[in-house]
Amino acid sequence: MTQDNHSPTAEGQFMHSLAERLFPITRSITGDGVRETLGILSQYLPGLVIHEVPSGTEAFDWTVPEEWSIRDAYVEDPNGQRIVDLRNSNLHVVSYSVPVDAVLPLDELQKHLHSLPEQPSAIPYVTSYYNRTWGICITDTQRQELVPGDYHVVIDSALFDGHLTYGELVLPGESSDEVFISTYVCHPSLANNELSGPVVSTALASWLASQPSRHFTYRFVFIPESIGALTYVSQNLDHLQEHVRAGFNLTCIGDEGDYSYLASRLGNTRLDAIGRYVVSGTERPVFYTYLDRGSDERTYCAPGIDLPLISLMRTRYGNYPEYHTSLDDLSVITPTGLQGGLDLVRDCIEVLEYDGVYRTTVLGEPQLGRRGLYHQMHSKTVEDVVLLRTHVLSYSDGDHSLFDIAQLLERPFREILQVARELLEHGLLEPVLGREDSL
Amino acid sequence: MTQDNHSPTAEGQFMHSLAERLFPITRSITGDGVRETLGILSQYLPGLVIHEVPSGTEAFDWTVPEEWSIRDAYVEDPNGQRIVDLRNSNLHVVSYSVPVDAVLPLDELQKHLHSLPEQPSAIPYVTSYYNRTWGICITDTQRQELVPGDYHVVIDSALFDGHLTYGELVLPGESSDEVFISTYVCHPSLANNELSGPVVSTALASWLASQPSRHFTYRFVFIPESIGALTYVSQNLDHLQEHVRAGFNLTCIGDEGDYSYLASRLGNTRLDAIGRYVVSGTERPVFYTYLDRGSDERTYCAPGIDLPLISLMRTRYGNYPEYHTSLDDLSVITPTGLQGGLDLVRDCIEVLEYDGVYRTTVLGEPQLGRRGLYHQMHSKTVEDVVLLRTHVLSYSDGDHSLFDIAQLLERPFREILQVARELLEHGLLEPVLGREDSL
Amino acid sequence: MTQDNHSPTAEGQFMHSLAERLFPITRSITGDGVRETLGILSQYLPGLVIHEVPSGTEAFDWTVPEEWSIRDAYVEDPNGQRIVDLRNSNLHVVSYSVPVDAVLPLDELQKHLHSLPEQPSAIPYVTSYYNRTWGICITDTQRQELVPGDYHVVIDSALFDGHLTYGELVLPGESSDEVFISTYVCHPSLANNELSGPVVSTALASWLASQPSRHFTYRFVFIPESIGALTYVSQNLDHLQEHVRAGFNLTCIGDEGDYSYLASRLGNTRLDAIGRYVVSGTERPVFYTYLDRGSDERTYCAPGIDLPLISLMRTRYGNYPEYHTSLDDLSVITPTGLQGGLDLVRDCIEVLEYDGVYRTTVLGEPQLGRRGLYHQMHSKTVEDVVLLRTHVLSYSDGDHSLFDIAQLLERPFREILQVARELLEHGLLEPVLGREDSL
Repeated sequence: MTQDNHSPTAEGQFMHSLAERLFPITRSITGDGVRETLGILSQYLPGLVIHEVPSGTEAFDWTVPEEWSIRDAYVEDPNGQRIVDLRNSNLHVVSYSVPVDAVLPLDELQKHLHSLPEQPSAIPYVTSYYNRTWGICITDTQRQELVPGDYHVVIDSALFDGHLTYGELVLPGESSDEVFISTYVCHPSLANNELSGPVVSTALASWLASQPSRHFTYRFVFIPESIGALTYVSQNLDHLQEHVRAGFNLTCIGDEGDYSYLASRLGNTRLDAIGRYVVSGTERPVFYTYLDRGSDERTYCAPGIDLPLISLMRTRYGNYPEYHTSLDDLSVITPTGLQGGLDLVRDCIEVLEYDGVYRTTVLGEPQLGRRGLYHQMHSKTVEDVVLLRTHVLSYSDGDHSLFDIAQLLERPFREILQVARELLEHGLLEPVLGREDSL
Repeated sequence: MTQDNHSPTAEGQFMHSLAERLFPITRSITGDGVRETLGILSQYLPGLVIHEVPSGTEAFDWTVPEEWSIRDAYVEDPNGQRIVDLRNSNLHVVSYSVPVDAVLPLDELQKHLHSLPEQPSAIPYVTSYYNRTWGICITDTQRQELVPGDYHVVIDSALFDGHLTYGELVLPGESSDEVFISTYVCHPSLANNELSGPVVSTALASWLASQPSRHFTYRFVFIPESIGALTYVSQNLDHLQEHVRAGFNLTCIGDEGDYSYLASRLGNTRLDAIGRYVVSGTERPVFYTYLDRGSDERTYCAPGIDLPLISLMRTRYGNYPEYHTSLDDLSVITPTGLQGGLDLVRDCIEVLEYDGVYRTTVLGEPQLGRRGLYHQMHSKTVEDVVLLRTHVLSYSDGDHSLFDIAQLLERPFREILQVARELLEHGLLEPVLGREDSL
Repeated sequence: MTQDNHSPTAEGQFMHSLAERLFPITRSITGDGVRETLGILSQYLPGLVIHEVPSGTEAFDWTVPEEWSIRDAYVEDPNGQRIVDLRNSNLHVVSYSVPVDAVLPLDELQKHLHSLPEQPSAIPYVTSYYNRTWGICITDTQRQELVPGDYHVVIDSALFDGHLTYGELVLPGESSDEVFISTYVCHPSLANNELSGPVVSTALASWLASQPSRHFTYRFVFIPESIGALTYVSQNLDHLQEHVRAGFNLTCIGDEGDYSYLASRLGNTRLDAIGRYVVSGTERPVFYTYLDRGSDERTYCAPGIDLPLISLMRTRYGNYPEYHTSLDDLSVITPTGLQGGLDLVRDCIEVLEYDGVYRTTVLGEPQLGRRGLYHQMHSKTVEDVVLLRTHVLSYSDGDHSLFDIAQLLERPFREILQVARELLEHGLLEPVLGREDSL
C-alpha cells in the first residue's frame, strides 16, 4: 500500500477538479443540493447507496427537520435595483430561511442582515436550522453603502415534510471489522470546510477499491453535518459499536497549512496513537484535544457511543480567516494540499492494514551475515540498515507490534514494515497477532 | 456553599479579633493556658467538648507528660534590677522549665540563656518537654549588654501529675463519613504559627454549623501539637480509620503570603488532588511534599495510621523569619490573610461536599437550542458558556467526576458545578455516584 | 560492604598493572591468546574454571567457528624491506585472516589494506570472523607513502577444528540467586574496550571473595564477545533464567570519562533502577537506552532470553576516538579510572546485597529523644541527621524498600542504609522482606 504508484499530480488534480464541479451547488442539511452532490460523487463511487430519511424521524435527542428548498432570493434597493441575488452567491441567504416577500425600510432590513465588519469583503455563512427566521448575508462593504429607503426582499424558499439525504459506500475486506470514514455534504459554496472532505474521501475510496485486497472493510458516509451524523448513528449504533475499529472524520483537509490531528474523546485509543504518530512525522505537526472539537466527532465520540474516531485535518475549522465565509473558495484548496491530506489518511490506513505483532524465530541475535543482511567486515561502525534490522529483531518479542517499534525507534512505520517484511522472507520473524488484535 | 454571603471583612475581622484575645495567654502542651484558650473558643463553638487525659497515659511510643504550670519568672541583674520578666513576654521561659530560685554568676547564667544572634531583636521560642532543664530566652541585644556579676533567677513553675487538655467538636452530616480538621493550641504568644490555625478553624466550624445541610460529618480537634495528636490518635485510631475520608491540618494560615499545600505521606489520595488543584488556582501556588512536613501530619499520616490528610497553609512554618520568635506577633496575621486562608479551605470543602459522577441522559449531544442553552444562529464562533455546557456533557460519562472535569478543563470547580446544576435542572444529567464514592 | 578498607590506589594500581601484563597478548575469539589470558587471570582467581567448546558446536543460530591461530605476518615492500610486522602490533592482521604468502602489485594489495584517513596515525582493528578473507591494517600515513611495485605479503595463520575457550568463576553465597557478571577476552592489544572489563571484573571478584559473607551467589564469565556469549547462553539458558536476578556486562570501564549506564532491553527492571540511580549520583551521568547497545547485552537481553542485565561503563564504545584502533592503548585507562569503574559496580552490588523492606515497630513517630536520637531542645531548626531518621521511619511502611527511600530522598543508598541500621539496633525497624524479594 505504498504511494509510489500514485502520481500526486493526477490524484490532486482529480480532487481539485471534482471540488470545482461541486462548488456551485446550493447545499444545506437537506434538499436537492445534497442529492445533486451525491449524484456526482456516485459517478466515481460505484456502489454508493443513497439513503432518504423522512422528516420527523427521531435521532436521539433530535428530530430530522423539514426539508428546505430555495429557488430564488434577492433584494432590491429603493431604486428597484437588484443589489443582492442568490445567483451570485448561495451564501446570501441564511440557510433554512423561511419564505419572505416584503418591502422593508432600511432599519427593519438591518435586523435581518449579516455581515462581518472585521472582514468587510466577505459574505458570512449563517444558518438557522432550528429557529424559524430569515436573513440575508452580505459583505460589510456593501452594507455600509446601503441608503435609507424601502427595500424589497424576496426569499422564495419552502419548508416541507421531505427527507434528509445521505450516501453510504461499503468496500468489503477480508474482515468484518470496519474502518469508518465520515465527511459532510451540507455546506453551500465553501471549499476547505466542506468540499475538501468529500473529494479526499472519494479519492481515498477509489484508491481502496483498486487495491488487490483489503484487510478491513471500509465504510464511507457522505452526510449532512450534525443532524446527519446523529441520524446515521441513531439508526446504526449497534452495528457501528460492534464493527468499527477505527474511524476518521475528514474535513478542512485540502489547504496547504500544517497537518493536524484531533483526538478522540478520551484520546487513549490505539488509533489516537497512530494519528498522533503519523501527524508527528510531518514538518510542523499540530495536535488538538477533544476540547478543540467542532465537527461530527461530537456525535461519534459522545459518551455511550464512543467510537474510536479521530479527525485528520490540515488547518482546522475556525483557525483560518476564510472559514465560514465566501472567502473559503476554490483558491483555499489546491491539488498539492488535497494530495497531502489524502496521503496523511493513507499513512494511517497503512498502519491499520499492516501492523502486527511478530516474534523472532531464533534465540539470541540471528547470524545476519550468512543471510546477506550484515556487512562483511566489522570495524568501527554499524550501517544504519543493519542496525534497523537488529532493532526490529530485538523488539519483535511477541509483545511489541511493528507500530510500537516504529514509535520506539522514531522512524516512519513504512520503514519498519519494509525491514520486517525482509526479515519475514528470511524466516527470522513469525507472526503472533494479526492486525485487528493490535487495535 | 458559595462564599458570596460571607463578607470577607466580617469574617476576617472576627478571626483577627479572636486571635488578639487569645494572644496573651501562656499556653504549653498542658496546663491552664490550654484550658483558658479552649474556654474562649467554646463561646463561639457550642458543642465543643473538653477532654482531659491524665499524665502517664500511654500514647503509642509516648506517654502523656506531667502537667506544667508557670506562675512567675524573672531575672534580676547584679544591681537587683528585674531585667527579664514573664509578664512582659511569655516566651522568656523555656517551656517546661523546672522550678529554680538561684543566684548565678554571669558565666553560669549564660549556659541557660537562649537568643538569636542573627535576629538580635527577637526572643526565641524554645521548649524542652522531655529533657528536664530550665532556660531563659531573651533578645540577643539584651544578652550582649549583660555585665559580669551575680544574677538572681526565679522560675516559679511546677510539674505534677495532671492532664493533657484538648477540645473536640463534631458537626454531624448526612453521612457518617468524616472530614477531620486538626489545629493546635500549645504555643504561647505566637500568631501565625499557632493562632491562625484555631481562629480559621473556629470560623470554618461556625460557617459549617450555619449551613442548611452537610453531606459529611465534620470533626474538629483543637489540641497540643505532637503529643496531643499522638494521644488523640492512639485513643481514636479505629474510628478515624473507619470514618475519615479527608483531613486537614491547619497552621500558618493567616499571613498574606502565597498559598501552599503540603501533601499526605504518599501524596496520591483524592484529597491531595483536590488540595493541589485548589492551591494551583491561586496566583503563586506553592507545593510541598511530605518531606517538608513539620506538624501533626507526622502522626496522622504515619505508616499504619495513614489518614488521608493534607496541610493547607499560607507561608509554611520555618519559611518566614518571624517563625518561632517573638516577632511572630499579631502584625504577621491580617484579616485579609486569615480570610484568604479560610476561603482556601472552604474551596476544598466545596469539592468534597459537591463532587459527584454524572451521566448524560441522552446519546449524542443533546439539542441545547430548544432548551434555551444554545445561541440562536450559528456563524463563526461558539460562546464560552455554551462550550462549557457541551464539555460538561461530553465528559459526564459515568466515569469522570465534576472535579475530574474541572481539572481537565482547567477551570475552577465552582464553575463546573454551576454548569452541572443547570444541566441537572434540564434533565440532561443524572447522578451515578455520590460524593464519598469519588473520594 | 563499604569501600573504606580498600585503598583506591592499591586496587587501581593492581588493575592497571594486570592490564599491562595482558596487553601484548594476541587474542581473538578463539585460540591460544584467550588461553594465555585466562591463565594469567586464574592466578588471581582461584576456582576459575576454563571451558573448551569444540568447533562446530551449535549456539542458537550460530556455530562455534574453527579455531584461528596466527604465528607470523608481515609485508615486504618492493625493496624487500619489512614495512609491516605482526610483532610490532597485533592489530596489523585482520582477525581470522586466512593464510597467504603472495607477491602482489600495489593496486592489488590496496584491496586488502585497511586504514583510517580521518585518524592517519591509528591502525584500525578489523575482524572478519565469518567471511573468509585476509587483510592488513596499517596507519593511513604509512599507506599514503606506499610506492608502486610488488609487495610480498605473508600471513602465517591457520584455521582448524579446535575450541572456543572461556573462563567461569562462581563465588557461592547464602542464596542460590545469582548476580551474573560478563566481560570479554577476545580483543588483541586494546585497553579500554577490552582489558578494562576483565581487570575490573578480576578486582571485583577478589573483593567479593574476601567478604565474610555474600547474600547472592556471584557468577563471572570471561568470554569471547558475541559468539562466546551466544555459546554460553545456549548451554546454560535454563540455569541463567532460573537463577540470575541481576547481571552486568562490563566493558570500557577504565578511562576517566563520565560514568554511564546502558539499559536492559525493556529498561524496566529493578536492576535498571539501581544502575540508573547509582550513575545519576555521579557528576555528569550518562544514560543510554538499549537502542545504543553494542556488546553482549545483545544476547543476554534478547527476546526469549531476557536476563535482567545492564551495562556499566565510563566512556561507551564508539564514543571515544581511540575506540577500535591502536590508540586504545594503556594510556587510555588509568588506575583512577579503573578504580572509579570498580566502585561504580560495587555501589550497585551494595544495593543488591543490602536493600530490603522494613516496617516501623511503633505507630506514630517514635520518641527519638529518649533513645538519644533527637536533639535535646527544640527551637527553629531540625538537624539533618534527625530529619533523615524521621524520613526513614516515615517511609519504612512495609512497602518502600531502603532503595526506594534513597530514591525518594535523593540521597546515596549507603546513607540510608546506615540510618536504617541504627534504627534497627534501636528496635525501631523490623524486616519485612529480604533482599531478593525487592528485586
